[in-house]
Amino acid sequence: MAVDLSYPDRVVELVAKTEEFIREVVLPVEDAHGGDIAAAGGDAARVELQKAAKDAGVFAPHVSVEYGGHGLGMVDRAPVFEAAGYSLFGPTALNIAAPDEGNMHMLAHIATDEQKQQFLAPLAAGDTRSGFAMTEPAPGAGADPNALRTRAEKVSGGWKINGHKHFITGADGAGFFIIMARTSGEPGQRGGATMFLAPADTPGLKVGRHIINTLDKSMIGGHCEVFFEDLFVPDSAVLGEVDQGFAYAQVRLGPARMTHVMRWLGAARRGHDIAVGYVAEREGFGSRLGDLGMIQKMIADNEIDIAATRALLVQACWALDGGSYAANETSIAKTFAAEAIFRIVDRSVQMCGGLGVSEDLPLARLSREVRPFRVYDDGPSEVHRWAIAKRTVGAARKAAAAKAAQS
Amino acid sequence: MAVDLSYPDRVVELVAKTEEFIREVVLPVEDAHGGDIAAAGGDAARVELQKAAKDAGVFAPHVSVEYGGHGLGMVDRAPVFEAAGYSLFGPTALNIAAPDEGNMHMLAHIATDEQKQQFLAPLAAGDTRSGFAMTEPAPGAGADPNALRTRAEKVSGGWKINGHKHFITGADGAGFFIIMARTSGEPGQRGGATMFLAPADTPGLKVGRHIINTLDKSMIGGHCEVFFEDLFVPDSAVLGEVDQGFAYAQVRLGPARMTHVMRWLGAARRGHDIAVGYVAEREGFGSRLGDLGMIQKMIADNEIDIAATRALLVQACWALDGGSYAANETSIAKTFAAEAIFRIVDRSVQMCGGLGVSEDLPLARLSREVRPFRVYDDGPSEVHRWAIAKRTVGAARKAAAAKAAQS
Amino acid sequence: MAVDLSYPDRVVELVAKTEEFIREVVLPVEDAHGGDIAAAGGDAARVELQKAAKDAGVFAPHVSVEYGGHGLGMVDRAPVFEAAGYSLFGPTALNIAAPDEGNMHMLAHIATDEQKQQFLAPLAAGDTRSGFAMTEPAPGAGADPNALRTRAEKVSGGWKINGHKHFITGADGAGFFIIMARTSGEPGQRGGATMFLAPADTPGLKVGRHIINTLDKSMIGGHCEVFFEDLFVPDSAVLGEVDQGFAYAQVRLGPARMTHVMRWLGAARRGHDIAVGYVAEREGFGSRLGDLGMIQKMIADNEIDIAATRALLVQACWALDGGSYAANETSIAKTFAAEAIFRIVDRSVQMCGGLGVSEDLPLARLSREVRPFRVYDDGPSEVHRWAIAKRTVGAARKAAAAKAAQS
Amino acid sequence: MAVDLSYPDRVVELVAKTEEFIREVVLPVEDAHGGDIAAAGGDAARVELQKAAKDAGVFAPHVSVEYGGHGLGMVDRAPVFEAAGYSLFGPTALNIAAPDEGNMHMLAHIATDEQKQQFLAPLAAGDTRSGFAMTEPAPGAGADPNALRTRAEKVSGGWKINGHKHFITGADGAGFFIIMARTSGEPGQRGGATMFLAPADTPGLKVGRHIINTLDKSMIGGHCEVFFEDLFVPDSAVLGEVDQGFAYAQVRLGPARMTHVMRWLGAARRGHDIAVGYVAEREGFGSRLGDLGMIQKMIADNEIDIAATRALLVQACWALDGGSYAANETSIAKTFAAEAIFRIVDRSVQMCGGLGVSEDLPLARLSREVRPFRVYDDGPSEVHRWAIAKRTVGAARKAAAAKAAQS
Repeated sequence: MAVDLSYPDRVVELVAKTEEFIREVVLPVEDAHGGDIAAAGGDAARVELQKAAKDAGVFAPHVSVEYGGHGLGMVDRAPVFEAAGYSLFGPTALNIAAPDEGNMHMLAHIATDEQKQQFLAPLAAGDTRSGFAMTEPAPGAGADPNALRTRAEKVSGGWKINGHKHFITGADGAGFFIIMARTSGEPGQRGGATMFLAPADTPGLKVGRHIINTLDKSMIGGHCEVFFEDLFVPDSAVLGEVDQGFAYAQVRLGPARMTHVMRWLGAARRGHDIAVGYVAEREGFGSRLGDLGMIQKMIADNEIDIAATRALLVQACWALDGGSYAANETSIAKTFAAEAIFRIVDRSVQMCGGLGVSEDLPLARLSREVRPFRVYDDGPSEVHRWAIAKRTVGAARKAAAAKAAQS
Repeated sequence: MAVDLSYPDRVVELVAKTEEFIREVVLPVEDAHGGDIAAAGGDAARVELQKAAKDAGVFAPHVSVEYGGHGLGMVDRAPVFEAAGYSLFGPTALNIAAPDEGNMHMLAHIATDEQKQQFLAPLAAGDTRSGFAMTEPAPGAGADPNALRTRAEKVSGGWKINGHKHFITGADGAGFFIIMARTSGEPGQRGGATMFLAPADTPGLKVGRHIINTLDKSMIGGHCEVFFEDLFVPDSAVLGEVDQGFAYAQVRLGPARMTHVMRWLGAARRGHDIAVGYVAEREGFGSRLGDLGMIQKMIADNEIDIAATRALLVQACWALDGGSYAANETSIAKTFAAEAIFRIVDRSVQMCGGLGVSEDLPLARLSREVRPFRVYDDGPSEVHRWAIAKRTVGAARKAAAAKAAQS
Repeated sequence: MAVDLSYPDRVVELVAKTEEFIREVVLPVEDAHGGDIAAAGGDAARVELQKAAKDAGVFAPHVSVEYGGHGLGMVDRAPVFEAAGYSLFGPTALNIAAPDEGNMHMLAHIATDEQKQQFLAPLAAGDTRSGFAMTEPAPGAGADPNALRTRAEKVSGGWKINGHKHFITGADGAGFFIIMARTSGEPGQRGGATMFLAPADTPGLKVGRHIINTLDKSMIGGHCEVFFEDLFVPDSAVLGEVDQGFAYAQVRLGPARMTHVMRWLGAARRGHDIAVGYVAEREGFGSRLGDLGMIQKMIADNEIDIAATRALLVQACWALDGGSYAANETSIAKTFAAEAIFRIVDRSVQMCGGLGVSEDLPLARLSREVRPFRVYDDGPSEVHRWAIAKRTVGAARKAAAAKAAQS
Repeated sequence: MAVDLSYPDRVVELVAKTEEFIREVVLPVEDAHGGDIAAAGGDAARVELQKAAKDAGVFAPHVSVEYGGHGLGMVDRAPVFEAAGYSLFGPTALNIAAPDEGNMHMLAHIATDEQKQQFLAPLAAGDTRSGFAMTEPAPGAGADPNALRTRAEKVSGGWKINGHKHFITGADGAGFFIIMARTSGEPGQRGGATMFLAPADTPGLKVGRHIINTLDKSMIGGHCEVFFEDLFVPDSAVLGEVDQGFAYAQVRLGPARMTHVMRWLGAARRGHDIAVGYVAEREGFGSRLGDLGMIQKMIADNEIDIAATRALLVQACWALDGGSYAANETSIAKTFAAEAIFRIVDRSVQMCGGLGVSEDLPLARLSREVRPFRVYDDGPSEVHRWAIAKRTVGAARKAAAAKAAQS
């Protein structure tokens, strides 16, 4: 047993193939449509890109071999997902975009065989898409999950769900939803939540308006409102056990955090590469821009942010692969990464000056896309910091009490 | 003589009237169209808003009384322009948007009476719009003006201009242009530049494509490419004196920098107000969000950034009103302000979480609009810092040499 | 009435005289003793420097003419105090060091004529020094004044005080103390506090150990513990009115915050000047260091921080001169300034490399001296931010309630 | 082959033993003497601490087994050195302090068997100390090694060295020096440098004054000037090959950078632990300080900085263990770490308020000690950023040229 940071050959090869696929196949599509997936054809574009990914042998790196994927663990996913994220359309092409990728992860861990057959198999194959219906508008469950208000009541043969969700990524056109609903306790208390599986065409389930014009445009199916009005689901629709929803959310959360980081890191790296390519050639002030100290500072800070994000990713993913929830490691890595990625893109924009804010270069688009990452996806940076600090202070109190008891 | 920071009554009253006008008349139009001036009707919207501003007695605060304005100096403009900038459409409504406002300023200082009659009068009245054609694509004049490549050759009775500009704000639909062209020296040298006035329909002047999809959408007429192909202008079209264009650019530059700051500060303040209003009511984590320490930190940092921006503005504007170019004071104020304004809006987005990146609140829009300010408008922050440092080091060397000479 | 930022001639002259005095007389003493006032002779050094300041006509700029000073208001003090602060010993030389300067300010506003005769007159003349005994060790009054535990009981003919203070600047050798003690309510409640005047040799008053080796060394009399054990003071020792101590602390607080900023800004400016002087001459990497972009960035950021600090100072001082407590303006200016000053010195250290952390240049000393400013002097930055945010959120709630009531 | 981040058992055990040794034996000595190694007895204290470390079985973890150590590679050193750095005296106790540790590393790699016997063996055993004489005062070799001015001339049977060094850590009392001297080319050119070994008592070698009062006090032997006046060394004193000194400096540099980071990270972690322990108990503002949002933010940011520093360390150390110079990885890790460590200690000071700047807690001391790390030890952060950016831009140019050649 010794520290080893080398990836297995098959991962190295998959990374190289993915890089080539993104460069040759996906980036041209993204750039032709300004990074707007709707403009590129929406779901039809997805289907076509995924077919190409299958042909290139890079489809579904995270899915088990049984369901047609490459079966990579978290650590090994990191460089592959980063390579895919280099294009905003890359994750869709490889079928590793949010929320599907996280949903597959959870279904693989919790679902019954029947549920896997019905929901996981087509999702893994790219035959359908899915939604994860957790976030609610105020005063419901936002950054604070305990505020959950969507409620499922036990009725004969199943459950009746009522509630209102929003910011549900990919909802428009999704084939099914994983729904988080309160099954005990009151909003504001912890209580118990349960996850339910429901095909999108179940009566009582309505996808509402897009939260129009969120800053990002690369996610298929938008970020929508979803309503449940006396939505009936049978007992077999319960995912895992009743009242265990908050715990399952943890199962999904850590890995989902990290795959977000992997993908966005790829996007940030593209911004950096464009900026470096630009300043390496463009002249001004009697010098190549890339030889000017203030530009060099931005380049170096980007390199540092990229390296630190990757290094934290490996640490957190390794903990996840070891079976831990890794709540602290993933909070740390996600908080650092979301801010680092924002900085990387922001500096890249700045290095390119006027071109950085124009669609002549893809930087304006990247800048729009990465901003939400500091807010979305299991809570803003502030909530992560709060959780990290609570653990630290709690441990210090415990240690002090133990020491006091000893003496 | 003593320091006094109180504004004259007429300024205080104009600020109050402007605030009311923006709140009652302009913000509803902006919000109905998501801050997209094209969506609001483009130039027709401008004409209507300006009519309303005239009726409300708040039109053209910066224009001399002779040309129908309020005749405010730079210091007094600051709170009025900030109040106007509270809506992204406010500057257009008051006829103080870039680049017209800066062009009026320069025409008032340099133009002949005939030129004023022909160009300034209709511009001040809102009967036309204008462009300031200085910035060029690489390897021409960008952040470094010495790279100027557009060239004017003396011909019989006038000048023949050839060149290519880009990022020319407001170009689409502008009635005339102020054109910066090299009349001596070679690109890369200082040499001499001259400013020319040319109606938009002069043969040889062509407005090209919009630099599509720059992040901002509130500027009428976009940011366009402009081409000059053997554009002939008569001798009477020379603005000021031949070869003095770089100096005149200075006349325009300092004030234009500061009015940019005033307007964007208003926009940032709106973002802050929205965020504070949100966290003052919204609950989460067992508390009002606005009572949580990390939110309080963001609020306080916004208040500090607003106060410091205003304080630096007053200093620089007072120097300008005293007749100085105030190159250093305006560089300092602009650099601080552009970054502070970005931070204010960014923190406001963060405070509002998911809503901050959605069009349900205007924050996503503000976020898009203010980013370019760190790049545009007489060069990015890096160029300002370079200029500030050069002056500081130059002064230190001079002082050291003087001291050495003495001893 | 119009905005005017020009200083009266007599202030401009006093600034020039102060600069010369500091350069010719005070800096040589500071540098000869590494900025350690104890090493320079302690109180004897103070007496000598103050004599020189009187001879130079720069002594006590803030004291009323009646008590031998120049009678400057807050706005006019700013450039004079900054000039004095350029040397760490300058404030002592001009008799404007903390806590004496703030104590004079408060005595001038609140004391009876007898009290002024007994305490203010000798303090203003430099015949004695004073302490301001407010801060207490945990769990007493630190950043949160409501925690005040030192208690004064009414007894026949006067008051009996018991309590324990620490970090009392200048205590060792002070001629008298202003003591803040609780006269109603319990620790943790607001209740009422009263200020008392007590000569240092009053029985029951004991100055304890120095809080040894605080980072700063330029303050005469150190930062000490002070104990009150059944300290009896007569009724005539009450400063102002009983139970009004918290309000009086406000009278002292705003101006004291600002004079701290003035002095430390001078110190930071010295650091900056040294660094600029160094990089303006030193060569490396094929260039003068001062021409390298990363150095230029540090220089420009220093210039911006200096300008912004000064600009905020003027705003807050003008509010104070107008009779306001200016709690918000001074909190904003102090918070920004304390952090800006720290950054200025830190960048100056960095620009000088190895020399920046050695006593060959005074930068290491400045670095040590300014750090505590983000903590001391009416609470750390965090407490100021909390207060600023509370006011902002409170105002937003009030405005929302008013609007709701209207409709 | 797969990524594995688990340490071998013997490393885990050595970390635990080191932690215990530091806590029980070393911290009490450090705290009793305020972290001032001179006050603790100087070299006598070193000898005693090293004896204790030998008894505890934690001495010389980095030295090969042959020379009495534990033979750990770079990756495995990281947690052990961090545990040692938890006390400022810890590295001295384990014989892993700079510059000895780096010198041992280089001797192990380059020295002849005789040289090892004469210099490495006693150094590894703690029987002597050493100096690394590279840095020179202006205009010599500082951050820019090409400026090297100390010169060695070939004479019969050996070399004659003349020059002037400064900031030579540990020079006072060192038993021998490794001297970097120019053997070809002129200052400002690359040319060739050679390393020489010289006992401290060789005629012509003089250790000059301490650069008095550098901010740090924990290094034995101070930071001194060293002079060479016609210093004769025999041919057998050449370390490695003539003119290969710059390359050998690289051999030493990468590992030395990383061991600096390990040690200082331990120190920073102590600061963090003290601050967390303080705010976990202390109350104020109606709450435990550690439950206030702004404090939580500081705690979380510290945790993030610690985690990122460790993660970058592992990456760089693994590259070094693989045989690479790892110039880029170590530059990235060192630059991030030096700034992160400074931030960690600064936030810890801030969390403790007044106590943070007093010697009642060790934070003021830590604050003083870590500041130089952003300057020392193979150049300030600016030089690292310059090198990182140069590599990045160079690679981009090469890639662009290759692509252009292809098409």
